[in-house]
Order: sequence, then structure tokens, then C-alpha cells
Amino acid sequence: MTDAGPQAQRFWLNGQATESLPLPSRGFDFGDGLFETLRLSQGRLLLLEAHLARLADGLSRLKIPDCLPTSRSCLISAAAELSAASIAHATLRLTVARGATGRGYRPDPLTEPLLLIAATPLASPAWPPEAAPLSLATSAVRLASQPALVGIKHLNRLEQVLLAADAMEQGVDDVAAQDQAGLVVSVGKGNLFLVEGSSVVTPAINDCGIRGTVREYLLTTVLPGLSVACSEDKVSLDRLLGADEVFCTNSLWGVVPVGQFLDRRWSSHPMSDTLRAELARQTP
Amino acid sequence: MTDAGPQAQRFWLNGQATESLPLPSRGFDFGDGLFETLRLSQGRLLLLEAHLARLADGLSRLKIPDCLPTSRSCLISAAAELSAASIAHATLRLTVARGATGRGYRPDPLTEPLLLIAATPLASPAWPPEAAPLSLATSAVRLASQPALVGIKHLNRLEQVLLAADAMEQGVDDVAAQDQAGLVVSVGKGNLFLVEGSSVVTPAINDCGIRGTVREYLLTTVLPGLSVACSEDKVSLDRLLGADEVFCTNSLWGVVPVGQFLDRRWSSHPMSDTLRAELARQTP
Repeated sequence: MTDAGPQAQRFWLNGQATESLPLPSRGFDFGDGLFETLRLSQGRLLLLEAHLARLADGLSRLKIPDCLPTSRSCLISAAAELSAASIAHATLRLTVARGATGRGYRPDPLTEPLLLIAATPLASPAWPPEAAPLSLATSAVRLASQPALVGIKHLNRLEQVLLAADAMEQGVDDVAAQDQAGLVVSVGKGNLFLVEGSSVVTPAINDCGIRGTVREYLLTTVLPGLSVACSEDKVSLDRLLGADEVFCTNSLWGVVPVGQFLDRRWSSHPMSDTLRAELARQTP
Repeated sequence: MTDAGPQAQRFWLNGQATESLPLPSRGFDFGDGLFETLRLSQGRLLLLEAHLARLADGLSRLKIPDCLPTSRSCLISAAAELSAASIAHATLRLTVARGATGRGYRPDPLTEPLLLIAATPLASPAWPPEAAPLSLATSAVRLASQPALVGIKHLNRLEQVLLAADAMEQGVDDVAAQDQAGLVVSVGKGNLFLVEGSSVVTPAINDCGIRGTVREYLLTTVLPGLSVACSEDKVSLDRLLGADEVFCTNSLWGVVPVGQFLDRRWSSHPMSDTLRAELARQTP
């Protein structure tokens, strides 16, 4: 899970290698766009279709012109270039920013979007990567309720930046992100799951939070395949503290167990172990 | 108020003329930064100190290293270059983005921020510019409550993009932006004021919205100087419809009257006229 520094990154703009971004940029000016972060594992883009499906949802909701075919081909080309350079393990971030307009917030519904891919080589070839159990705390920064943007992975990510800074200051790996009412939604860097007896629960994503690709894959495929009951529900801090096991998901970690949340500790993670083995075996 | 297209823009990165942005960019990736849009009028940057004061507040709240002296000198240099090129009237947008880090949300508290200035020449030399009364509607897109970000002009502006798109689709100039509880906060492109008898009221900025520089200048200086009672308060749709006069403010318009909101019409705008004359006379 160690990332290389920015100097090791490679970038492609609309399919062409680049080191810079043309100006003006609505991505830079307003965060007017979307992104997907994919894991390249042994030359394969994991959960590619799930990432493209979420991107399609975001494009539709932000009314950015459809660029799914180009997004797919740019990702596949970048992966092929990396493989040709003997880089088989990397993160690939695809950013789709709304096309440039004149000054001001008003978008042009016809301008072609800009596609930027940033690739960062990864040291570890394992999928899911080896990871020590996470330590979590709470944060005074709460996620805002915004039904117009819920679920999609848009570029307005200041809340996640503030949560990451807060975790760093508190000396923990991440924080349990709460909504304005205090319910737990996710962690800063991914989704959150609770094991309660033989069932698995994850916070419902109704007014805030992101529908992660691994989250959706577990809910729709992996957990049903194991005949494990799973559901989306409201999760309070007390419910989280009372869980038998807790784990987090994202497209780079896969599944990673939580070892500590405030004063609560979990020392064994049988469901996480099972799901990590399943992800290693069957992630498309 | 007519803007030139993107081809007429000029850009400076950390004081040097540029046409592109280096990668990676936390401004582009996460909207991790702030901006100020200033009006250059007869070679003078209007309300420069007010813009720098709001920027300072944002830098402090986002924990971006202080860059006020550089921000000031970059703005003054850009204005001087424009004046030397016989461009006396323009918008100058200063963007301060947090400095680049490795992949991921976690900020580096020590990395120097990046300063980008974008200048767009303006056709009209008048301050405040001539402007027809605005038509307003409501919008289904509501502003999210986020006390951690309220008031400052950060780069996460997807809500404003959605509001601008909604206004365009409805064929109106702008929309009255409501919070999640339905109270009116502002318009999409600026702040909003109501005239009620001899008093002036503007929505309180508590959980969402931006503290505009012209808004603050009116509240602290211009209205008190005219001995007009002014206050910040809760504003419902009904209260807005019942106002004797309505006007909007931002750093490019100054004050512009509202002529229509839904079925309500206002045909005379004595307070707007007075305030526009005051802005023309005394804007620092």
C-alpha cells in the first residue's frame, strides 16, 4: 500500500502522454468533474466495468457529455503502456472534467470533456494488498447532506481532505465519517462494513457518501455468493462500537480490517479474512 | 458584463506567464484550494484588502500555508502587466491550490501552495457595470450545510455549477439558492439583499453560502454610512416575495437589482440605484 511520490507518476491527457494540464480548466476552477481510481493488478484493471458504470451515473447526473467509450479505451491504452514498461501494478486515476468554457459557473452542455489519467506504480503486487488493521477515530468534520451529488465520485473532495488531515493530526489511520445528524457514513478513504453475528451491514448512502465499487461488488456478488445476509442501514457510533468485526473497503485496499475504533479493539477478523480471500480469487 | 471567451484569457503561475498547469494538481484532483475573483477597474483592483482578508480566513481554515504577501504581489504584478498592455478593465481570478503531494487525500502541511491568476478582459469600463434587472427562479438543487467550509470561497463549487445550469435551463438569469431547510441563502453567482421598508436584510451565512466581499462592504461600511439599518437574518421564500426591493451583489457586478422572482415583479429599485452610485463613488 506504499505509494511512490509524485515524481514517479505518469499522465495521459485524452490518450496522449503529458506533464501538464491546459488552461482554463473547470476541473481546477470548480471541481467540475468526476474521477475513478482503479487498481492495475498483473496488468488487469480490477472492477473496470463497475468503475465505468459509476462514472456513467456521474456523467448523467452532472450532465457532462457521455465519454464512456473514450474513457474505457484511454484506461486500457494506459494499462497497456504501463505493462509494456514492465509496470504491472499501479493505481490509475481517471479524471473526467467538464470541457472549458468562458469565465463563470455556467457549463456548456456541448463542450467535450477532458480525460486525464494519472498512473502511480505500486510496490506490492498482491491483491488485496497486505495491510495492518486500521485504527479509527471520530472527527469534528461532518459530511454535508447533498442529495444532488450523493453516491458519485465527483471532484469536490475538500471534506475528504479535511478528514485525512484530521486523522493525521490524531495519529490514526482514518476517521469514521459522520453525517450532520451524527450517523456513521463511511471512513474518509473508503466504505465501512460491520459484522453483527452472521450478518453484514454497511451504512446506507442516502444523503452523503460515495458508493464504492468494492462496496457494491461485496453487496451484490461476493456476500450473496457466500450466503451471508447483508444490508444497508443506519449506523450510529454505538452500533459501530458494538459490532463483532469491522472492515473498510476501497478500490486500492479491497478489504482491510479495522483493529481499533476509539477504545474498542478487535483482534480477529474472520469475515475480513474470508472476503479478502474471495477478492483474491474472483475480482473481475 | 460581457466576458470574452477563453482564448482571450491570460494566466500567471506563481508570477510567471503560463498556458498550462503542472501535474499532479490538488486543485484539479480534489478542489483543494481557494479562489478570489477581483475586478480590475481603470487599473485598480477593487476591494483588494477585503479579498485578501477572506483568502486569509480560508487559508487558515483549510490549513494551507500562509501565502498572503505572494498573493498580493502576484495580483499587483498581473494588474500592472495588464495596464501596460492597455487592458484597464478585467476580471482577475486568483486561485490558491494546496501544494502537490503523493497520491491520496492526505495533505502535506508544509508544501508551498500554487498561485494561479487568470485574467479576462472586460468590454465595459463602468463600475458598477450597467446591468438589466435580473430574473430569478427557485431550484431543486439545495445548498448543503457544511460549517467546516461556510463563508470561504473554496474550489468545491459543483453546487454553483448545478445552479447555473438549472438557471440556464429555466431561462432565467439566476436562481435563489435555498439551504436544505428551504431558507434562501443567496443566488448562484452572488449574495442577495432584501429591502423591507427603510431597512436592508441579507440572509445570514451560518451553515452554507459565501461571505461576498461586496456583501461585507455594504454591511460594514456603505449602509451604515447612509444610516440605513441593515441586518443578517433568516429569509424564507415568502419573505423574499414580500420584499419591497431585492438586489444581488458580487465582486464583478457590484450591486444589480432583481426585476423578477417567480411571479413577483419589481419595477423600481431606489436602494439599488443609491448603492450603485455609492459603489461608483467610494469603492476602495
